[in-house]
Amino acid sequence: FSVASAPIRATLFPGDGIGPEIAESVKTIFREAEVPIEWEEHYVGDQIDPRTQSFLTWESLESVRQNKVGLKGPMATPIGKGHRSLNLTLRKELNLYANVRPCYSLPGYKTRYDDVNLITIRENTEGEYSGLEHQVVRGVVESLKIITRQASLRVAEYAFHYAKTHGRERVSAIHKANIMQKTDGLFLKCCREVAEKYPEITYEEVVIDNCCMMLVKNPALFDVLVMPNLYGDIISDLCAGLIGGLGLTPSCNIGEGGIALAEANLANPTALLLSAVTMLRHLELYDKADRIQDAILNTIAEGKYRTADLGGTATTTDFTKAICDHL
Amino acid sequence: FSVASAPIRATLFPGDGIGPEIAESVKTIFREAEVPIEWEEHYVGDQIDPRTQSFLTWESLESVRQNKVGLKGPMATPIGKGHRSLNLTLRKELNLYANVRPCYSLPGYKTRYDDVNLITIRENTEGEYSGLEHQVVRGVVESLKIITRQASLRVAEYAFHYAKTHGRERVSAIHKANIMQKTDGLFLKCCREVAEKYPEITYEEVVIDNCCMMLVKNPALFDVLVMPNLYGDIISDLCAGLIGGLGLTPSCNIGEGGIALAEANLANPTALLLSAVTMLRHLELYDKADRIQDAILNTIAEGKYRTADLGGTATTTDFTKAICDHL
Ligand SMILES: CC(C)[C@H](C(=O)O)[C@@H](O)C(=O)O
Ligand SMILES: CC(C)[C@H](C(=O)O)[C@@H](O)C(=O)O
Repeated sequence: FSVASAPIRATLFPGDGIGPEIAESVKTIFREAEVPIEWEEHYVGDQIDPRTQSFLTWESLESVRQNKVGLKGPMATPIGKGHRSLNLTLRKELNLYANVRPCYSLPGYKTRYDDVNLITIRENTEGEYSGLEHQVVRGVVESLKIITRQASLRVAEYAFHYAKTHGRERVSAIHKANIMQKTDGLFLKCCREVAEKYPEITYEEVVIDNCCMMLVKNPALFDVLVMPNLYGDIISDLCAGLIGGLGLTPSCNIGEGGIALAEANLANPTALLLSAVTMLRHLELYDKADRIQDAILNTIAEGKYRTADLGGTATTTDFTKAICDHL
Repeated sequence: FSVASAPIRATLFPGDGIGPEIAESVKTIFREAEVPIEWEEHYVGDQIDPRTQSFLTWESLESVRQNKVGLKGPMATPIGKGHRSLNLTLRKELNLYANVRPCYSLPGYKTRYDDVNLITIRENTEGEYSGLEHQVVRGVVESLKIITRQASLRVAEYAFHYAKTHGRERVSAIHKANIMQKTDGLFLKCCREVAEKYPEITYEEVVIDNCCMMLVKNPALFDVLVMPNLYGDIISDLCAGLIGGLGLTPSCNIGEGGIALAEANLANPTALLLSAVTMLRHLELYDKADRIQDAILNTIAEGKYRTADLGGTATTTDFTKAICDHL
């Protein structure tokens, strides 16, 4: 066995629906590639846990807090009242302040774009997601967008650090400060402060409407994008669309104290596998990450074993086997 | 002279920069096509008019109010303090509640998409553009998004009416009501109410992040889109990007009392000409509109007389002449 040190413990939420099936695929491939990870599996409970106000158990959150690293399959929030959405609970309880999505064209998987290679970094805790809304008078409602210096600096810091450690050259802050001068203005001010500490990284500011226009015209113009919550929600999905959809885009959430929770944004083996790869990178297991990513991309490029979501007929098991063969 | 009735008076803001030059192009082409319009020209003043708090003169606004129809070239807001942006002043003073942008692939002008044919209709007076922002404590700022029943019903009504009168089959309301349940929720509620009065039009609701992903994957899925202010700002620019940019997208603002103010969103002859065409349609001068639009599109398709913004070397005068030849 090639790994001398103790294995890394990581939390695994297989999720529901086909979640356990695709989680199995990750486990198989990680085993085959001799990734030194020991999974600690946690399922969503069948009752509301009063400590989380949701179907997530307190123990599962404790597991992520302790391991500081986890992988999450698809989890549909059960319908009903009096509890919080699973995803929003995770974000809140683990203070997952940045959502990172690498987005690159997959060789062999044809879309209208073949030159996408960018990273969206989304502030994940505040902005338009404050949950503060009320009816002023009948027929007049308002919702509050909150931007804080603390959260803006934190995500900007993460974006520049990411750019530097991943060989990226430019960070673009996306905003609408021409209209929301105070909120988006504060966000930009924080980005500028952090930018000063990274003179080797080019910094620019792009208005969100113009950014979306440029992304669909020429996505190669962008490198790392950092932005408030709602813009991140919109732009990360737009970018996923450029390369074929959410099923092909990995996603990783960064939390306080160095927590990383990778997640699939669609119930699909490729999304979960590529997300698992981002987790390996976070753990600085770069060799394993590269090897597994190459095997996944080569399998997709080959075109023989594509799952239904990629227009093929392969089962998750076929796909998994093909990837193992490529390892 | 083929037109018996009195000419229609329309306000013309030639704008600044190359504005007067491209406004001249519209005037020439309209004359050539015998459009029964008499222009009333108004320029931006060189001093702040206290009645508008901006460089727009009160007389020019009165002219639009009276004529109920106008065309506006590019107008850069002079830099300085103590006055309002020209565009925002126009929206506010004339209560321009809906911004309508037809967006269709231009034959012969190649982009990654050749199947775009949709209309974005943007609520233009409220939402994130309320201008209400403040600092709660140092490092914590908030901005208010306001949604009212009145403005939502008004723009929804316009969207369905537009769909019906323009042979469109579907209206999609774009929202993020899963997060902003009260504000976007009210917007959707109003759209649903109006939808009931138009059983012949299919009504659907699409979450903004998903909408952007679908737009870049397959814009042919959409027909008429209606949405709150900021989403409209973002999506209308995204859609412009699909067909080549703002220089190719006409824009028309609809105000209280049936006002229509067409505008170019970029200082470019095609944008202003196509916007002028939307003005003709608003005036129900469909024959003239079709004739001029065909001449513009044929000139672009021919490729011989393209202006610099479309990758060519033709001057505005060459381009204008070529369009007149096609009339
Ligand atoms: C489901 C929804 C609440 C969520 C969001 O808006 O954050 C989703 O779109 C995402 O990006 O994870
Ligand atoms: C310049 C800016 C204030 C404006 C807006 O956001 O409305 C522009 O983007 C537009 O779409 O007309």
